[in-house]
Amino acid sequence: MYQTARIGIISISDRASTGVYEDKGLPALKEWLNAALHNPLQFVEELIPDEQPVIEQTLIELAAECCLVLTTGGTGPAPRDVTPEATLAIADKVLPGFGEQMRAVSLKYVPTAILSRQVGVVRGSCLILNLPGQPKAIKETLDGVFAAVPYGIDLIGGPYLETREEIVKAFRPKSAIKPLLPGA
Amino acid sequence: MYQTARIGIISISDRASTGVYEDKGLPALKEWLNAALHNPLQFVEELIPDEQPVIEQTLIELAAECCLVLTTGGTGPAPRDVTPEATLAIADKVLPGFGEQMRAVSLKYVPTAILSRQVGVVRGSCLILNLPGQPKAIKETLDGVFAAVPYGIDLIGGPYLETREEIVKAFRPKSAIKPLLPGA
Amino acid sequence: MYQTARIGIISISDRASTGVYEDKGLPALKEWLNAALHNPLQFVEELIPDEQPVIEQTLIELAAECCLVLTTGGTGPAPRDVTPEATLAIADKVLPGFGEQMRAVSLKYVPTAILSRQVGVVRGSCLILNLPGQPKAIKETLDGVFAAVPYGIDLIGGPYLETREEIVKAFRPKSAIKPLLPGA
Repeated sequence: MYQTARIGIISISDRASTGVYEDKGLPALKEWLNAALHNPLQFVEELIPDEQPVIEQTLIELAAECCLVLTTGGTGPAPRDVTPEATLAIADKVLPGFGEQMRAVSLKYVPTAILSRQVGVVRGSCLILNLPGQPKAIKETLDGVFAAVPYGIDLIGGPYLETREEIVKAFRPKSAIKPLLPGA
Repeated sequence: MYQTARIGIISISDRASTGVYEDKGLPALKEWLNAALHNPLQFVEELIPDEQPVIEQTLIELAAECCLVLTTGGTGPAPRDVTPEATLAIADKVLPGFGEQMRAVSLKYVPTAILSRQVGVVRGSCLILNLPGQPKAIKETLDGVFAAVPYGIDLIGGPYLETREEIVKAFRPKSAIKPLLPGA
Repeated sequence: MYQTARIGIISISDRASTGVYEDKGLPALKEWLNAALHNPLQFVEELIPDEQPVIEQTLIELAAECCLVLTTGGTGPAPRDVTPEATLAIADKVLPGFGEQMRAVSLKYVPTAILSRQVGVVRGSCLILNLPGQPKAIKETLDGVFAAVPYGIDLIGGPYLETREEIVKAFRPKSAIKPLLPGA
């Protein structure tokens, strides 16, 4: 039996949130997560503009009820890109390895990955990761870093995530044990 | 036709700025930029000591009139090395990918690249990058990261830079469009 | 003749410091350093719990008398992991290259290296590095980054460290000169 996991997904875009174009971030996130995880997933979805106070408030609310929150969009150098600022503002701990490795993964595909300011942080017992805006880049990034996510969530007291190895093979040290109770 | 670009170059060194030895940073920066870019370039040049307030003031002034500011020198761990501190102090946004990738590039040549504290930031509509002090390392670093610079400058509202592909091939996503007017 | 070097080593663990299990961090650090360095070494050893004020105070004391301080433990994402926070709190300068490169080295062995928040900083004339908790990972990390440590210590005014090349080959630029007097 797999534990149910509640996952927050937030698409951050002025234009998608006002209907100027169709949001493709939330569908891409759900598709990847449903394919990669054995656990039954409950998604909490938000589509919001690039407004730092709105992003912060949304992250705070979703982090309180989810073990993992993924954002897409708003990580570039343009003035309206404020997703990393909002994420850092509400973080308890910053995990610099996620930003480094997400950029290193994307750099294999495009030199402009260097411009991304994505971060990974912990708030309470929730891991928050900023992902790129394009569906293709979302998939590439998750393929590249998700192996460490289940153990990261173990360490902050979340549910025991189990992955489909044909998509991504979660890594846990041999000392890690599967808890009998959720969050134990 | 290519748009004219105004580029600030700052050599930061107590000894070079007082004439103890000849500055080799500014010539190396100009040589690389002239070779790499099709655009007509106007350089604003400064040779200043390792004094944080002086560096900050110089960065503020040059960022107000340039689309790109490159510094050389003062990024090591020694007490007088304060270029990154000054750069961060006047930054609107930090782009951690530049520091990471500049070090990763230099690490291919020397293990001590790990000691460099170079950063890349945005101030207003100017991209600022800290480069190493040695002409050889300046060239290696620019060869390694410049492909992302033109699109980065597009995103913050600067002129449309075009590179000579035999030196460096600028990368822009297919969605990027060449503006009809400068800074549009 | 080799200069004597004083090195602080700190094992940070609630369980080891209260005797719940045996500390393996300090022996692993001493073994590696004794094998890698020609210099006669004086170790200052501490075994302390994951309490940020205790870690900060210990780092301050050891940094005042050592050229190098290595910590082991407390760098993960769990709430009790506060070694990086303590290290950053007492730092004069942060050297981001060490965190980046230590994670990059560990990533060759385990995907969960991305979760480590290790930092490298300078305080006064002391270099401080956070290492992982496991003896195997301590060795892998030091093997991977120590080549830059002797020159880093030169630059902040410490003793001239000389390594055994079969373990690690210290790198110094050709312009670096061996001082005649300690710390000169």
